Amino acid sequence: MITNKKVKELITWNQKSRARREADVFLAEGTKMFLEAPTKGIREIYVSESFFATEEVREKMETIGYETVPDDTFRKISDTMTPQGILCVMERMHYGLADLLKTKNPVIMVLEELQDPGNLGTILRTGEGAGVSGVVLSKGCVDIYNPKTIRSTMGSIYRVPFFYTDSLQETIRELKENKITVYAAHLKGTRYYDEFDYADSFGTAFLIGNEGNGLTDETASLADEYLKIPMEGSVESLNAAVAASVFMYEAYRQKRNNRK
Amino acid sequence: MITNKKVKELITWNQKSRARREADVFLAEGTKMFLEAPTKGIREIYVSESFFATEEVREKMETIGYETVPDDTFRKISDTMTPQGILCVMERMHYGLADLLKTKNPVIMVLEELQDPGNLGTILRTGEGAGVSGVVLSKGCVDIYNPKTIRSTMGSIYRVPFFYTDSLQETIRELKENKITVYAAHLKGTRYYDEFDYADSFGTAFLIGNEGNGLTDETASLADEYLKIPMEGSVESLNAAVAASVFMYEAYRQKRNNRK
Repeated sequence: MITNKKVKELITWNQKSRARREADVFLAEGTKMFLEAPTKGIREIYVSESFFATEEVREKMETIGYETVPDDTFRKISDTMTPQGILCVMERMHYGLADLLKTKNPVIMVLEELQDPGNLGTILRTGEGAGVSGVVLSKGCVDIYNPKTIRSTMGSIYRVPFFYTDSLQETIRELKENKITVYAAHLKGTRYYDEFDYADSFGTAFLIGNEGNGLTDETASLADEYLKIPMEGSVESLNAAVAASVFMYEAYRQKRNNRK
Repeated sequence: MITNKKVKELITWNQKSRARREADVFLAEGTKMFLEAPTKGIREIYVSESFFATEEVREKMETIGYETVPDDTFRKISDTMTPQGILCVMERMHYGLADLLKTKNPVIMVLEELQDPGNLGTILRTGEGAGVSGVVLSKGCVDIYNPKTIRSTMGSIYRVPFFYTDSLQETIRELKENKITVYAAHLKGTRYYDEFDYADSFGTAFLIGNEGNGLTDETASLADEYLKIPMEGSVESLNAAVAASVFMYEAYRQKRNNRK
């Protein structure tokens, strides 16, 4: 039977970034997140009494081992309003810059002080779709292991390499040493994002700033190129995840056309 | 002084879609939403005692007339955790299909059963940026006048025409009668979204389905063309607002290139 101590621990892991970090874990909820979880990364599995497991889910649960908990306890350890009834404790991934530079002509997203968990999750999800090599986060970004972020990645958290850097400036310099062209969306930009060549290049990094304030001057000044997104009407900026998606899908479009 | 009855009414308008509809109003909060609001659409303005108005804000407030309310009352009528201290009651806009067909070669977003207020707001915001002519919503979509949607439009709610249709199928037929090519993102699609020509056309409509279930078969079957978004990795779909943004910015990219 699940102990009170364990229930408290799981609740803390849902709520506290620091507790998750110290235990080197994160929580992943729901059938999709469970099925896509790499087996070797799963430490613990909890299912509610009324959870209905498909054959595929049951097989994976039984191979790894799981614990059944009463429905009212499950509601406590769940981060969602309508829990699906399965939650797993996952070991964290530990990537470094080298993991993002493994592919030829990589596209790397560099996020500075991004605050919205949903935006971050969406950038990972779209990033996997657009074939990006990975994501760099400034240490002031929202916690990627936040349950809301995990959910909005729709499983991409398991597959897209990422890491937090203590010095975004230093990481950008390393990217440039690796011949990556660094682009910043910035008011100083005179050319549109679709006027640059991402296909015939050694690699691309897009700098994406904070939702309210954009990039800091210090970070923006390190870019090789400034670009802008054309906008009609009275729109001053796009949502950060949308802007990132427009960049990623344009780079991907050019690369696909180049291969033809 | 603000009456209790009025306070209750404002709270109801924040919370209840039906009450807003019956009064033909919506609420817009914050300085940006106030400054961008069309003056003739503003019915009432409320500011908190501690609200600091810039000169621009003060001039507009005084021209229209406003009421100051105690800070604790303002917190009650506000939908946000950290209210900016200004809220206005707006008259609703009333558009029809003709408003969406005014421009040459229009791009129209058609949303079926979209449920997330943030996604809807983001589609309006990105849509204005990408120069779309307007948005059609099935009657089962989330309320566009939901305070969360209003906030995430960042003001585009005032400028992008939209309407709810009782019959999405009927509206799609009317679009087709107006020579609009109707595209549906669908598994049946064999061509990618960037392989179609949106620039040299009489008009484009993109059908976007529900976040969880996509388009209904009935709606999808009315499309002229099925398209798909290429996706690497294990990604099955993109966030609805991201998918819509990728379509809108591709159509806009082609149109801009055509003009050169």
